[in-house]
Amino acid sequence: MLIVMKPDASASEIERVIEIVETLGFRAHEMPGQNRTAIGITGNRGSVDPAHFENLPGVADAIRVTKPYKLISRDLRPEKSVIKVGNASIGGPELAVIAGPCAVETVDQVFAAAEAVAKSGARFFRGGAFKPRTSPYAFQGKGEDGLKILADVRLQFGLNIVTEAMDERGVDLVEKYGDCIQIGARNMQNFSLLKYVGKTRKPVLLKRGLSATLDEFMLAAEYVMAEGNYDVILCERGIRTFADHARNTMDLSVVPALHRYTHLPVIVDPSHGTGHNYMVTPLARAGVAVGADGLIIEVHPCPEEAMCDGAQALTLRQYETLIEQVTQIHQTISTYEAAFATA
Amino acid sequence: MLIVMKPDASASEIERVIEIVETLGFRAHEMPGQNRTAIGITGNRGSVDPAHFENLPGVADAIRVTKPYKLISRDLRPEKSVIKVGNASIGGPELAVIAGPCAVETVDQVFAAAEAVAKSGARFFRGGAFKPRTSPYAFQGKGEDGLKILADVRLQFGLNIVTEAMDERGVDLVEKYGDCIQIGARNMQNFSLLKYVGKTRKPVLLKRGLSATLDEFMLAAEYVMAEGNYDVILCERGIRTFADHARNTMDLSVVPALHRYTHLPVIVDPSHGTGHNYMVTPLARAGVAVGADGLIIEVHPCPEEAMCDGAQALTLRQYETLIEQVTQIHQTISTYEAAFATA
Amino acid sequence: MLIVMKPDASASEIERVIEIVETLGFRAHEMPGQNRTAIGITGNRGSVDPAHFENLPGVADAIRVTKPYKLISRDLRPEKSVIKVGNASIGGPELAVIAGPCAVETVDQVFAAAEAVAKSGARFFRGGAFKPRTSPYAFQGKGEDGLKILADVRLQFGLNIVTEAMDERGVDLVEKYGDCIQIGARNMQNFSLLKYVGKTRKPVLLKRGLSATLDEFMLAAEYVMAEGNYDVILCERGIRTFADHARNTMDLSVVPALHRYTHLPVIVDPSHGTGHNYMVTPLARAGVAVGADGLIIEVHPCPEEAMCDGAQALTLRQYETLIEQVTQIHQTISTYEAAFATA
Amino acid sequence: MLIVMKPDASASEIERVIEIVETLGFRAHEMPGQNRTAIGITGNRGSVDPAHFENLPGVADAIRVTKPYKLISRDLRPEKSVIKVGNASIGGPELAVIAGPCAVETVDQVFAAAEAVAKSGARFFRGGAFKPRTSPYAFQGKGEDGLKILADVRLQFGLNIVTEAMDERGVDLVEKYGDCIQIGARNMQNFSLLKYVGKTRKPVLLKRGLSATLDEFMLAAEYVMAEGNYDVILCERGIRTFADHARNTMDLSVVPALHRYTHLPVIVDPSHGTGHNYMVTPLARAGVAVGADGLIIEVHPCPEEAMCDGAQALTLRQYETLIEQVTQIHQTISTYEAAFATA
Repeated sequence: MLIVMKPDASASEIERVIEIVETLGFRAHEMPGQNRTAIGITGNRGSVDPAHFENLPGVADAIRVTKPYKLISRDLRPEKSVIKVGNASIGGPELAVIAGPCAVETVDQVFAAAEAVAKSGARFFRGGAFKPRTSPYAFQGKGEDGLKILADVRLQFGLNIVTEAMDERGVDLVEKYGDCIQIGARNMQNFSLLKYVGKTRKPVLLKRGLSATLDEFMLAAEYVMAEGNYDVILCERGIRTFADHARNTMDLSVVPALHRYTHLPVIVDPSHGTGHNYMVTPLARAGVAVGADGLIIEVHPCPEEAMCDGAQALTLRQYETLIEQVTQIHQTISTYEAAFATA
Repeated sequence: MLIVMKPDASASEIERVIEIVETLGFRAHEMPGQNRTAIGITGNRGSVDPAHFENLPGVADAIRVTKPYKLISRDLRPEKSVIKVGNASIGGPELAVIAGPCAVETVDQVFAAAEAVAKSGARFFRGGAFKPRTSPYAFQGKGEDGLKILADVRLQFGLNIVTEAMDERGVDLVEKYGDCIQIGARNMQNFSLLKYVGKTRKPVLLKRGLSATLDEFMLAAEYVMAEGNYDVILCERGIRTFADHARNTMDLSVVPALHRYTHLPVIVDPSHGTGHNYMVTPLARAGVAVGADGLIIEVHPCPEEAMCDGAQALTLRQYETLIEQVTQIHQTISTYEAAFATA
Repeated sequence: MLIVMKPDASASEIERVIEIVETLGFRAHEMPGQNRTAIGITGNRGSVDPAHFENLPGVADAIRVTKPYKLISRDLRPEKSVIKVGNASIGGPELAVIAGPCAVETVDQVFAAAEAVAKSGARFFRGGAFKPRTSPYAFQGKGEDGLKILADVRLQFGLNIVTEAMDERGVDLVEKYGDCIQIGARNMQNFSLLKYVGKTRKPVLLKRGLSATLDEFMLAAEYVMAEGNYDVILCERGIRTFADHARNTMDLSVVPALHRYTHLPVIVDPSHGTGHNYMVTPLARAGVAVGADGLIIEVHPCPEEAMCDGAQALTLRQYETLIEQVTQIHQTISTYEAAFATA
Repeated sequence: MLIVMKPDASASEIERVIEIVETLGFRAHEMPGQNRTAIGITGNRGSVDPAHFENLPGVADAIRVTKPYKLISRDLRPEKSVIKVGNASIGGPELAVIAGPCAVETVDQVFAAAEAVAKSGARFFRGGAFKPRTSPYAFQGKGEDGLKILADVRLQFGLNIVTEAMDERGVDLVEKYGDCIQIGARNMQNFSLLKYVGKTRKPVLLKRGLSATLDEFMLAAEYVMAEGNYDVILCERGIRTFADHARNTMDLSVVPALHRYTHLPVIVDPSHGTGHNYMVTPLARAGVAVGADGLIIEVHPCPEEAMCDGAQALTLRQYETLIEQVTQIHQTISTYEAAFATA
């Protein structure tokens, strides 16, 4: 059930609807919009009777939602969401660039990357302290020590920190040291973890699972939102297919699809999406051209020495050239995209 | 590194090797076999020098392992492992049948199913108390109350309980009430959870992820074993492909592949693997014919009333006929398979 | 449109319906069944008015067909079709075994294989004279010379010859020398070729395309049948997925699906379906257990010397053991399957 | 084997090498380049001895080729090929746009589309006279009558005609009426057809098969080139994956991969690649941004009346806006891409 308030509904009218929802034993999710506020209702097993709401003061409409996803839907919030991450935001008119090394290795490595990232004008820094590795015997990340280095990067360069958590302890630590909690592709349907980050108040960067359909991806975000955390950024990072020339197959058509059905920002990760240095720049350009709200890019001062995923990391010089190109493409399409995004 | 002891090595010689491994700061995994014991070494970042070991009393060979998986490998343990689950076992000459409803719903439903399962000669009962559901608004399982019902089934029917855990709290509860901890397909690369169950002493049923390669599947098991829990049962439950006539595509060729490379038992799940009632029996037969060590089958007293996955559950009558057929096929091939398994 | 005749409809009543169909400018496809004859109508752009037919003498029912496939459907022919291939048949109670080398190389190689195949009781011999190869520089087959060797095999061993054609000239030659025209996976949607074999009077073995859905596979068969050749045998030979432990992923669930929706026989090809010698026997057993009407198996007197696909060919000894096993499994399930097939 | 001539090798020196290749019973493929000519050798079963060539006058180097593809390789021709199609070309600095309706239906429909296409500055017109349709009962195209309409479009608008052929008769007709022979995805491994178009002298637009790997795609082009027709344009049109939000999954990473390994131009088809009107423009932008040499776009005066694939066709107005955007993106990246292409 979705309750659309009138454009001139007062705060107390909105409050009253929320109270009634909660009295009925459900949960109310207030979604303020440009022109009107909507209130999503979850926690109901069956359908809710619209009659409870449609005659209340300030209510424009009470709509049954037949799709499996509710809070993520453009029905609930017609405008795109702009998510605040630290002192910057993702989903607004500016292209969001999140860059940094795959893994936090040493202070020197991280600071060298951070300097280039800050210089390029990017507002977000990435770097893994907890690394989900296919093999139990591979480097698993530096843990809290790595997070402390990232916190120093924020202090020194003013970059906002996006970093992955793999379990509840990790979420607590990322909440303490970072600005945005990344949930990796392999945990996209770790429903317990999704619920846990849904209870935090830090924005969540949710990566698409390797074989997640559009619906599954949206419903994973819905898990987070249903717990009350509406600040979710979606990330396409390549899917698993038969194709073997790249590590994954970037599915860029998911970007317009997500923009059509959800109000959440969508970014793309051409580094993990391709796994090859020579493909990162072309696919980053394509990601921006297709309409993504941002990019997440691996950059390493010495890719050949990287402790993980070195083959895909850009050098600092390659990274600068990439930023030049995507900035121009983003300017070129932003008029067209703006029209599209609010259409 | 893998240390193969001589067939007549004494317990104290084995103990001495383990001590040296631990003195070097590594972890020793003792794998007793029919003819000889092997000791796997993990925890080493680089390679270990065989010279440390090859001249010790009782050591037949010290072998560098170049594959990413070690403890799961047939190099370490040439015979198939037989895993004890409650008062029965999986991986031995008998076909293991794990049957029951998708979700624990009511005492009546569970007991009706359990009665038929026990009558059929099966030794294991399944039923989910924690349900990983694509939508946050779908039935999520009865939790600890469901586990208590399952514990009653064991008491009443002597069936061993296999049930899923989705997080650490769930693992603790399944350890308390059940006999085997199931890790679902969506958590196959939830590495934190794998490490956690690796520290328990209950056997683990590990389901293959929807898009897991053979190596990824084996390394997920290796995560559990590297923590000291060697009782892992692998389960093929269908992979995600373009094919749309079944919910998933059963990849039965993974069974001989797993038997070739690992010593762990392999079972197949034709219920989730197909998602259609009419396909379950043919694919169960195929799974046994391809050489699986067991089956996991959904059966429900009233499939049309099931709270989840009713479309794939067998009726009690269908289940009985299935058991008749697979029992005959298993007898037919067991001579041939026995030869294959130890080849 | 599908016209079902009454069980006691006379030949002249059937003839009259066909005449009217043709007068209306459509094509009539007579499908005699155990209990009644049905007549499929194709060539109509829109729907046909049932009123034209339902009151004609001998007509039981005139049914609009909403599915995209018609002639292949169990609606048209409720019983399974038994297809005559040379002096034997596929789809009947006996398991059909088609065996032989991947490619025809020399008389000696072909005759050595044929001797073993004949001895095993199989009725069909395979061997490629025209080889679809990924590279233009790979061995492309011996062409008509190869077909002549196959014709000699029929003379000498009484085996029926199944061999691939890749184009119209090839179809003409296979029609001349062989008993069954194989259309390979890569040509499954070569619609011109499908129409061409639809005009021949030899049975067609149609292999599923590497990424064909169930509907596409059935409609490819429908292309052949719409031209008047109803003798089509469907073959599952593995699909393309992300999985890399086998050359293709055998999709055995397609067998019960095809049996549910079509009346055509279905066989499976575990040799191309897996690409690995050690997987062929387990998957052959699984194919028979899942309910396939037959197998197509590569066997070579000296697999290691084979000019193509040697890695998957069985030795003559392995082939014999395979036949022993699948024969037993087929006997075991045939009672159950017979019930299923006519259900 | 690949023979690289010295930059100053004379025509007669090149001629002499070709003569010797042919005397040895092989086929010589002359590939003139900006700085030097290379000669590919095919038709050799095993390897050729470089000693035959390396001391001949004008020869710089004789190189054994270990990859399965030869003529398509950048080793043979380091510069990108520019393919002449009618009075324009594909692969040069200008973005090639091929636009038009899916199928030729009526003179009015085709001319309305052609007028918009010509006005937009595009040089190529598409439209199917032979339509590969999944169902035998779907509209199969207007055949030669359709080709005549397309020939009229060339006369009237000066557009070069790109149209599909499905078999040898179709190839002959397209050669007669059109400027470029399109081979559809379903025929990408119809090797007989590839050889046949390899003997024509019209350029070939080769669409990637639904499940073709990079190697298979390149080797399909190699089939055409091995017959002497070097004018092949490669087209990414989406691959088949589990994703269900688009008809196919555009695999844009194949564009930089193809540019890395081959000298052939690469275009992308966002219409078939997505199957949804609302995705075509974003993916067209992405295709240009990733570095494609051109686009193939479906445009229809009245998409809702189209006889096939109407859901994906752009309106004339949408098409114009698309062209504006991709033109700007192409200008933006062409400096960067030019550097990349000749790197």
